[in-house]
This record gives sequence, structure tokens and C-alpha cells, in this order.
Amino acid sequence: MNVYTAVKRMVVGRRLTNAQLSETLLPKRLALPVFASDALSSVAYAPDEILITLSLAGMAGFMFSWEIAVVVAIVVGVVVMSYRQTVHAYPNGGGDYEVASANLGRYAGLAVASSLLVDYVLTVAVSVSAGVINAKAMLPFLDGYEALTAVIVIIFLTLMNLRGVRESGTAFAIPTYVFMFSMLGMIAIGLFRILVLDQPLRSETADLIVVPPEGSPEFVGWAMAAIILRAFSSGAAALTGVEAISNGVPAFKPPKSRNAATVLGLLGALAITMLLGIVALANLTNVHLIDELTGTHYVNAAGETIHSAAHTVTGQLARVVFLDWFEPGFYIVLTATMLILFLAANTAFNGFPSLASLLAKDGFLPRQLHTRGDRLAYSNGILMLSGGAILLVVVFDASVTALIQLYVVGVFLSFTLGQIGMIRHWTRALKTERDRKSRRTMFRSRIINTVGAVSTGAVLIVVLISKFTHGAYLAVVAMAVMFLLMLAISNHYRAVHEEVALTHESDRALPSRVRGVVLVQRVDLPTARAIAFARAARSTTLSAVTVAVDDEEVESILDDWENEDFGIPLKVIASPYREITGPFIRYVSELRTENPRDVVIVYIPEFVVGHWWEGILHNQTALLIRTRLHFMPGVMVTSVPYQLKSSGKAKAAAHKASQPRLR
Amino acid sequence: MNVYTAVKRMVVGRRLTNAQLSETLLPKRLALPVFASDALSSVAYAPDEILITLSLAGMAGFMFSWEIAVVVAIVVGVVVMSYRQTVHAYPNGGGDYEVASANLGRYAGLAVASSLLVDYVLTVAVSVSAGVINAKAMLPFLDGYEALTAVIVIIFLTLMNLRGVRESGTAFAIPTYVFMFSMLGMIAIGLFRILVLDQPLRSETADLIVVPPEGSPEFVGWAMAAIILRAFSSGAAALTGVEAISNGVPAFKPPKSRNAATVLGLLGALAITMLLGIVALANLTNVHLIDELTGTHYVNAAGETIHSAAHTVTGQLARVVFLDWFEPGFYIVLTATMLILFLAANTAFNGFPSLASLLAKDGFLPRQLHTRGDRLAYSNGILMLSGGAILLVVVFDASVTALIQLYVVGVFLSFTLGQIGMIRHWTRALKTERDRKSRRTMFRSRIINTVGAVSTGAVLIVVLISKFTHGAYLAVVAMAVMFLLMLAISNHYRAVHEEVALTHESDRALPSRVRGVVLVQRVDLPTARAIAFARAARSTTLSAVTVAVDDEEVESILDDWENEDFGIPLKVIASPYREITGPFIRYVSELRTENPRDVVIVYIPEFVVGHWWEGILHNQTALLIRTRLHFMPGVMVTSVPYQLKSSGKAKAAAHKASQPRLR
Repeated sequence: MNVYTAVKRMVVGRRLTNAQLSETLLPKRLALPVFASDALSSVAYAPDEILITLSLAGMAGFMFSWEIAVVVAIVVGVVVMSYRQTVHAYPNGGGDYEVASANLGRYAGLAVASSLLVDYVLTVAVSVSAGVINAKAMLPFLDGYEALTAVIVIIFLTLMNLRGVRESGTAFAIPTYVFMFSMLGMIAIGLFRILVLDQPLRSETADLIVVPPEGSPEFVGWAMAAIILRAFSSGAAALTGVEAISNGVPAFKPPKSRNAATVLGLLGALAITMLLGIVALANLTNVHLIDELTGTHYVNAAGETIHSAAHTVTGQLARVVFLDWFEPGFYIVLTATMLILFLAANTAFNGFPSLASLLAKDGFLPRQLHTRGDRLAYSNGILMLSGGAILLVVVFDASVTALIQLYVVGVFLSFTLGQIGMIRHWTRALKTERDRKSRRTMFRSRIINTVGAVSTGAVLIVVLISKFTHGAYLAVVAMAVMFLLMLAISNHYRAVHEEVALTHESDRALPSRVRGVVLVQRVDLPTARAIAFARAARSTTLSAVTVAVDDEEVESILDDWENEDFGIPLKVIASPYREITGPFIRYVSELRTENPRDVVIVYIPEFVVGHWWEGILHNQTALLIRTRLHFMPGVMVTSVPYQLKSSGKAKAAAHKASQPRLR
Repeated sequence: MNVYTAVKRMVVGRRLTNAQLSETLLPKRLALPVFASDALSSVAYAPDEILITLSLAGMAGFMFSWEIAVVVAIVVGVVVMSYRQTVHAYPNGGGDYEVASANLGRYAGLAVASSLLVDYVLTVAVSVSAGVINAKAMLPFLDGYEALTAVIVIIFLTLMNLRGVRESGTAFAIPTYVFMFSMLGMIAIGLFRILVLDQPLRSETADLIVVPPEGSPEFVGWAMAAIILRAFSSGAAALTGVEAISNGVPAFKPPKSRNAATVLGLLGALAITMLLGIVALANLTNVHLIDELTGTHYVNAAGETIHSAAHTVTGQLARVVFLDWFEPGFYIVLTATMLILFLAANTAFNGFPSLASLLAKDGFLPRQLHTRGDRLAYSNGILMLSGGAILLVVVFDASVTALIQLYVVGVFLSFTLGQIGMIRHWTRALKTERDRKSRRTMFRSRIINTVGAVSTGAVLIVVLISKFTHGAYLAVVAMAVMFLLMLAISNHYRAVHEEVALTHESDRALPSRVRGVVLVQRVDLPTARAIAFARAARSTTLSAVTVAVDDEEVESILDDWENEDFGIPLKVIASPYREITGPFIRYVSELRTENPRDVVIVYIPEFVVGHWWEGILHNQTALLIRTRLHFMPGVMVTSVPYQLKSSGKAKAAAHKASQPRLR
């Protein structure tokens, strides 16, 4: 154990083997916060987006917020019910990708995977942006620097994840529980003050009149319906993250499925309560939310126009409920909201590489992403995710309202395909199941999943229609690109697999003899070592070959060769055009032609260097020759490395890069 | 001979071997244009820069143009005389780099090399910019697009050189001779018309009054002297390219030295005549040149301010001499001037890689640049040169007046060090020479070179002082960076050379046995081939090893292994952390520890693919393992390539990249 490993174990804790993984099984009280942060955090921005979309219709629009929230809550209920069936059916963890792949085939699975990959990127962008906007209610100096702050937060999360620092269940539990209790407390206290104590709580935007953008049509009939549908689509963001538990069943303490289903039910109840509570409170305190992006503006009591966006719904509610009565409550709610949003972003940093690993195992992504332990593969996934999220945050200036237009398309596509997969699953199971009771349960499950599929499918259609031109098309394009890319990779792997499959007996015929060739460019220690090793390998014939590029050099090489006793003669190949590669390749090629049943081993002495720039100064000819020899069947290329003193550092770096990630 | 080669030979002509190179020896009538384009082309911009600098002092300044031109002409004469000595002393070609290295040591040689490399980049930028500005007199629509046009010309030259299209002597001869005769003709006709026919030829700027920038001090005493020195420094650009012949002596027909000296003398005479002729004509036709950059402006007869820059001196003279009398003359002069300037830029595309090759041979640049035949090395040099030139053109907006401030520092540093080297050369030669007559010649040569060294040294000091803050510091910084970089490379190569020098007899002790290890990741054709080859190599022991990353996978590998009869058992290494590299490296490392006197050969089956993106999908684990095994002494890594069908195309590309350049 070297110093690096020692320090690392001290910081990160001891390594866990596959067998030890069962030690980390989660009790329900820890499973809830671990899996809930993504789903619950979305109630911090879903109500905002409902109100902002409705504001397009002016003051009249806000009337509908209550109805929309109820419909969203119903969908949450349906989806939670549906996933409880999935949890029971796939106790080893059945994400929508596995469910769709297993029941609907390769293309459906791939569609789910593409949408999930795109949605992970959006989760990071939306959650961090929402966290920053929420923080603004406490930290007003962030105003105008939202995108910058969001980028800094994403970079921080990236570095934490690159360093392999993992949150324990406790790290998740504290902010999540604080968020849950402070949010529920705020709702309860707010409702109590208004309904029981009859206090006239009015939000900071209660007295502002919302004026729709100039030239807006009157919001009646279809125009109103369109607005309401878009508001619903934005509110549907509250559903993101609900599916997390169905992936994570194996992490629960036994009875795994039942515990997972219980936590899922709890999560659904919490999400519904919080969503409805916040919307109710926002209505009672007359929160009027707009966003500059939509072109809407306020007019205050004095008749002045106000353009700047107000605080988030959570910020306004925390202010009106707590600020005049229990000031710390205000800070607790906002801090917890900010933290849970950042935690939600962090879950994507785990979800993305996990999904990539699954996809790699199934041949849709480069195979090396499969071995999860490999630090390089994991790091690449993290960098892709954070790069994409930073791009989105910068392009959309960390505006949740803009980003939300791209969001949820993927979520609902994956919901819908997952549910359809479950219907198929039950139908198949019913074909073989004979037990009465089991059959009844399965019938019931199939009905629930059918309701789920129909509702999420309906939402998907609503989302696509109402948001397509507002940005959803970008998400669709990104998914299509991922889909085609992964399909191409998969087809390539399949083609190669077929090409290299063992079929004919002749493929394993042993070559009769081995012809060794040592490439000599200088007479020095690396060359001497290569010759010593090549002689030890006792090939049928062994020759040392140098290419005559420069007359002076050749003479000095021949002199040195005579002084040393290498035991084999040195052949000099003429190079009329002053190049090394061509003549050497030709020499090897002729050797092959003369002895077609033999195999040729080319020994190339190589310097092992310590810095990347040293790599430019050495081995370039060796690299070129190796590349060209690779195209010659029946030729093996053996690098005989010579470690320069400077290579010590690089050794440590290579060691680090291929170290497993500690969990 | 494949189709590619066939077509290439048809286009470029047959390949020339080293031995055939003597066929291309140049007679004097071809040597003059080949070596003169760079030196002669500078008379197309040097007079302009003299006048523009003098314009800072207003109308009074132009009085001094004549005196400055005479001093520049004298310096040209001195330098030509000096180089005639070099040509005689180094009949095998003595560039300033070789002369300084041989006589003044490594650091002086390196200083010359750095300044020449920087100056090659500047030659391209200045010549192309000057060519474009000259073309503007014929093609007025280029106005405002100078930088863009210059970049396009540089890209064109780059592509021509990358494709390996070489100018024959004839391609050089025609434009150079046309330039010489049209320029001399223009001067003669102009002088004849003014002095003999007494025609009042007045240039287009003759009636414009030049007003110095506001706030300029009065130009008397030191201020005037400073302007005159700067004007001289800019005019000294006329000397660039004079040194070309001393590099090229071996290319002359015998008697090489005498012919080279003759051509050098001829070149000097031509340059002096053209420079003085142009300045004289400019004076007689009252050319008043300014440049917007300097802040100067014109006032015309009506008292109106005119800011736009006028045409070049050559453009104005061609207009006034030819346009009213023989119109084609105007176009011939300007076209020839433009072409010779582009040809001058093109010479840098040959000079840069040649010098880089010399430097690489001496260990100052990566060694692979030495083999000139190698297309990759040559291409890198061309791309570096054109990248630098494009950067300069864009940053300085293709302004010759701005670029000229950076120029000539390097030229004169290399002149001065070269001449000092020659003084040393003669002093050394005199120590051994006994022959009276020879000694007298040597004394004479040493005096000439001393005069040369003193004058070029003085010019260098004047240039540095008068231009340092105007931009020359950038050139100095660039040279210092190149100097330090090449010194670092050289020190690195020296250190490595010492480290790997053969010293102890023990270095060549033969290892006693060979342990073969085949890495198995799948049971397929590449693996089967690797095993067959490894068995053919008959090592002392041979084992096949797979790493258990995924239980399912291992089982399928073991099943396949049993079905095939490979003749060796498969070892499965446990990988508790789901990674391949670590456990495999540990296995090899243990094998080494158990058998310290043996050598280990690791056989890795590798896919040879056709596209870069296929590279991402295959061999990544192999690459990682190979990198880490390289750091382990006593371990050889043998790639056993398996050529996929798609590799055919890549084979052709690799073949092309390592093909020699045809000359």
C-alpha cells in the first residue's frame, strides 16, 4: 500500500468488494431521503412554472392554478401506483430501460435510454438553476449572476464526483428531512395563520397586477385551453424523479420489494401533499408570479410598470409565513430548498454513469464504460454530463422557465414505454401463471399499469404538443441523436462480433516457425535490452535491422555494433528516400512473403517517459512503424519498454487513472 | 505500385533518390531566380516603409529618403561582400546556423536558429501582406479585405506545399525575370522620361501635403535623428533573403563556390540598383506616402483632409510611368511584383522544414523531424509556419508597416553572429595555413567579414533601439521562447543519451526463461489468433488469463473455452472491485516477483479498425493495460493484431501518411 492509497483510504474510507456491498443495504428511514431528493425537490419549481405559464393570460389565469395542481397530483398518484407494480415485478431493480428492453425489445429500450440520458443532463441544469433562483430570496446579491453561480455549483458537484466523494445515506437524510419538515411546517403554519387565526397574509406580489404581453389574444376558448395545457405540462415536472426507486430496489433491506413499495407510497403522499399545500398557500396569499421571458409585466398600485421577476413561490411563501413571526424559519426553508435541489442534481451524477454502464453491457455504448470500477470511464461520464448541463445553463441563462420547456418530454416518454412494458410483462406472466390468487393480483396490476400507461401517454402527448415549438423540439432532437448514435454503436459491435466469431477449425492452425526482427535505430541500452529479450524468446531466426537514413549515422551505428557483442549480425537496409518506415515495412513484408506459413515478431525498443512532452521527443518512429505493421496479417509487434528515470511519476499517474473508484 | 502512387508520380514527377539529387544542380541562370526571389522582392516594400516612417516628420521628412536609401544600399553591398567570403569558405553550404555553431558554439548557433525560425514566419506574413497591398493598385476591390486575402493566399501556399507540389527552377525563373526586367525597365523609362524627355511626371500623391499626427514634437535634433534611424531600420528589410545563397552552395553547378559568389554579386548589384532606382524615381515624381497607422494624414489642394492610405510606391510609379504611355506595362509590373512576393513567401515553406531538419539532427528539435522524407514531419513544419503567419496577418491586419516593426531583428542577429563566426573561422584557419598567397586571401576575407560584422552589428543595435517598443520586443520574446525551448529539448536528449549509453557488461545478460501470458477478454478469432501465435513462440510457460469482472461473462467465456481446444488452460483472476487492469497487472507483477531472472511476454489481442471512432469502441482496455505494463521492467508487451474488414481504408491512409515526400 503506497502513500497515495493510504491517504485516499483515510479520506474516502475503505474499499468495498462486491460481496461487501450488501452491508450497505438501506433501511426505509434512509432509503426515503436517498431516493426522494429528486422527486421532492421538483415541488420547489413546479408550482412556479404553473403560475408563470398562467400569467400569460393575465390575472384571470391564476384562477386555474388550483385545478392544474390537482390534476398533476392525480397523475403523481397514478404514476406512483404504477411503479409500485414495477417494484413488485422486478425485485432485482427494474428501471424503465430494463423493463422496456425486456418486454418491448431493443428499440424501445434504446428510446427509453436516450430520453433518460438527455433528461439526466436536464435534471442537473434545471435543479441547479432552480436552486440558485431560490437562493436569491435570501442572497439578493446573486441577482444578475444566476448563470455564473449555477455554473460554479455544477463545477463544484463535478469535482466532488470526480474525486469520488460519495454521500452516505446520512448526508442525504439531513437536508432532505429538514426540507420535508420545514416545507410541511410552512404549509401547516401558513394555513393555520390564514384559516384559523384569520390573519390576512398577503404575499409581496399580491398587490401587483399582471399584464399579459402586448398583442396577446384574448384568453378565451382554445387560447385559454392552450395556456392551461402548457401550464399543466410545466407542472408535470413535479413527477421527475419518481421512477428512481424502481431502479434501486436491490439497495433496500429485505423484504426488498415490499419496503421499496412502502417508501414509494410514502414518497407519493409527500409529493402530493407538498404540491397541493404550496399551490393552496400561494392562492391564499395571492402570489402573482411572472417571468420576464414570457413578456408579461406587473403594474403596481401607483400605476407604475415593473419588469423585474419576483422571488420564487417558496421564497414568497417563506417570507410571508415566517418573516414577521419566526425569522429563522425563512432561512431554514430556503436553505433546505436550495440544498435539496443541489442534491437532486447530484443524483444525476450517479444515475448517468450507472445507466451508461448498463448500456455499455448491452453494447449500446463503448464497452469500457461497463466496468464501473474503472475511474476513467466513470470520469468521462461525469464530464459529459456536467459539460452538457453547463452548456444548457449558459445558453438558457439559468432560466428554469426556459429549461423546463425542454424537460419532462424524456421523463414521460420513459414513463410511458416503461408502463407499456409492464402491461406486456403481466400479459406474458398471465400466460403461464395458474394460481388463482396470483392471477388476480396480476390482473389488478395490469389494470393499474394500463391506467398508468394511458395517463402518462396522454401527458406525453400534451407536453409534446404544448411545448414542442417552445423548446421541446431541442430535447427531441437530442434524444434522436443519442438514439441513432447508440444504434450505430450497437450495430457495429454486432457486426464485429459476427466477424470475429470462431467458426472454422482452420482459424486455430499453429504457424510453423517464428521469425524475429529487432528494429535498431541507435546502439544503446534500450536496444541492447530488446536484443537480449528477443534472444531469450528463441525464435527460429532472429535478425537485427537498421535503416540507412543518414550515412554518418549508419557508420556510427555499425562501429558501435562491432564494439558490442550482441551475437547477431546487423542488417542495413538502404533508404534512398531518407525515410525509415517504408523500407522497414517492405523488409518485414518480404520476410512474410518468403515464409508465408511463419509468423513474424517485430521487436521495437521503446522509451517509457515521464511527461507528455517527452512523448513527443521519443518513440514517434516506433509508433508509426507499429501502426503500419498492425495492418499486416501474421505480424506481431512486441514493444520492449525501457524505463527512463523520469517515468516514475507517470507510473503513479497511470496507476491512479486505472484505480477503481471507491464507493 | 498502387493507383495512388501511380497518379502521384504522374502529377509530381518521378521520385528522386539521394544519388539522383545531383541531376538537379542549378546553372547560374536558374540559380539567380531560385535564390533571388526573397532578396529582390523586399525592394517592393522597403522604399515604402522608408517613406512612411519619414512621413511622421511631415513634408520635411521625405528629404532624407535618398540618403537613407544610399546607406541601406551600402549595407547591402557590405553584406553581399561578406557572404561571398562565407560561400568560398563553406562550399558544402554554410548557413549562418552552421557557421555560428561551428565557430562560436552551441549557444550562438541556437540563437541564430531561433531568430531564423521566427523570421521565416515573418517572411511569410510580410511578403504575402505586401503582395496583397501591391495587388490593390490593380484590384481596388481588395480594399478592406487585405487580411482575408492574405490569409487565403497563405492557405493556398500551405496546401500547395502540403500536397508536395514543388516549383521547378523554371517556375521560379519566369516571374523573377519578369519582375527584374519590368522593374528595371520602369526605372529606366521613368528616369528617361523625366531627365531626358523632360516630362513633368507627378505621382498621384505629389500634390498632397502630409500633416504629422497632432501633438507631434517638432522634428529637429534628436527627434529627427530618431525618425531617420527608424526609417533606416525599416529600409533594412531590403536585406532579408540575401543569406539564402550561402545555404544553397551545394545546389550550384561546379565550380560551386565561384558560381555562387558570382550569383551573389549579381544579386547584390541588382538589389542595390533597384532600391536606389525606385527611391530616386519616387523622389523625382514626388511620391508622398503615409500610413493610417502612424496617425499622419493628407491635406489636398482644396484644404480637405484625406485619411485613406495611398497605393504602394511601386503602384504609384507604375501608374505614372506607364499608364499614360504603355498601359500593359502597369499591369506587368504589378502582377510580377505580386507574384515575386508570393514566391518569396513560398521559399520560407522550404527553408523552415530544412532548418528544422538540421536542428533535429543536432538534437534541438524532436528527432523525427530529421528524416526529411517523412511526410508527417514535413507537414507539421508547414502547418506550424502557416499557422504562425496567419496569426500574425490577422493580429496585425495584414499591415506591412506594423509587421515590419517585428522583422529584420532576427535577420540582423543571424547576420551578425554569422559574420563573427566567419572572423573566428579565418583566425583559426590562419593558425595552420602556411602558404603566403592563401594567408593573404584569408587576411583579406577576415577584414571583409569584420567590416560585415561591425556594420550588421551596428544595424542590429539601431534596429533594436529604434523599433523595440514599436513591436520588435515581440520578435525578441518569440526568439527567446524558441531559444529556451530548443535548449530544453537538447538538454533532455543529452540527459537521455547519457542515461541509455551502453556501459556495464551486465546490461546484456540474457534472461533465463520466457513466461508467456495471453490476455483473454472474449473467446473469438482475435483471441484464438493470439493464442496460436503465442504457442508458436514456444515460451517456457504459457498461460491464458481472464479477469472476472462480471459473473455472467466469465461463465460464458469458460463455456466457450471448453468448447474450443486451445491446448492451454484458462486462469480466472478474481476482481472484487469490478475492474480489469488492476488484477491483471498484479498477476503479471507476481509472475515477475516469483521468477525475477525471467522475462514476461504479455500477448494482447488487438482489433485493427478502419475509422477513428471504431478506435473508441475497441482496444481501450488493451491500451490501458499496455500503458501500465510499460512501467514494469522485464515485461514485453506483444500486440497480436486482428485486421477487421474495415481496416482496409485505414491501411491506405497510414501508408499515405508515412510515404516519403517527393522532391
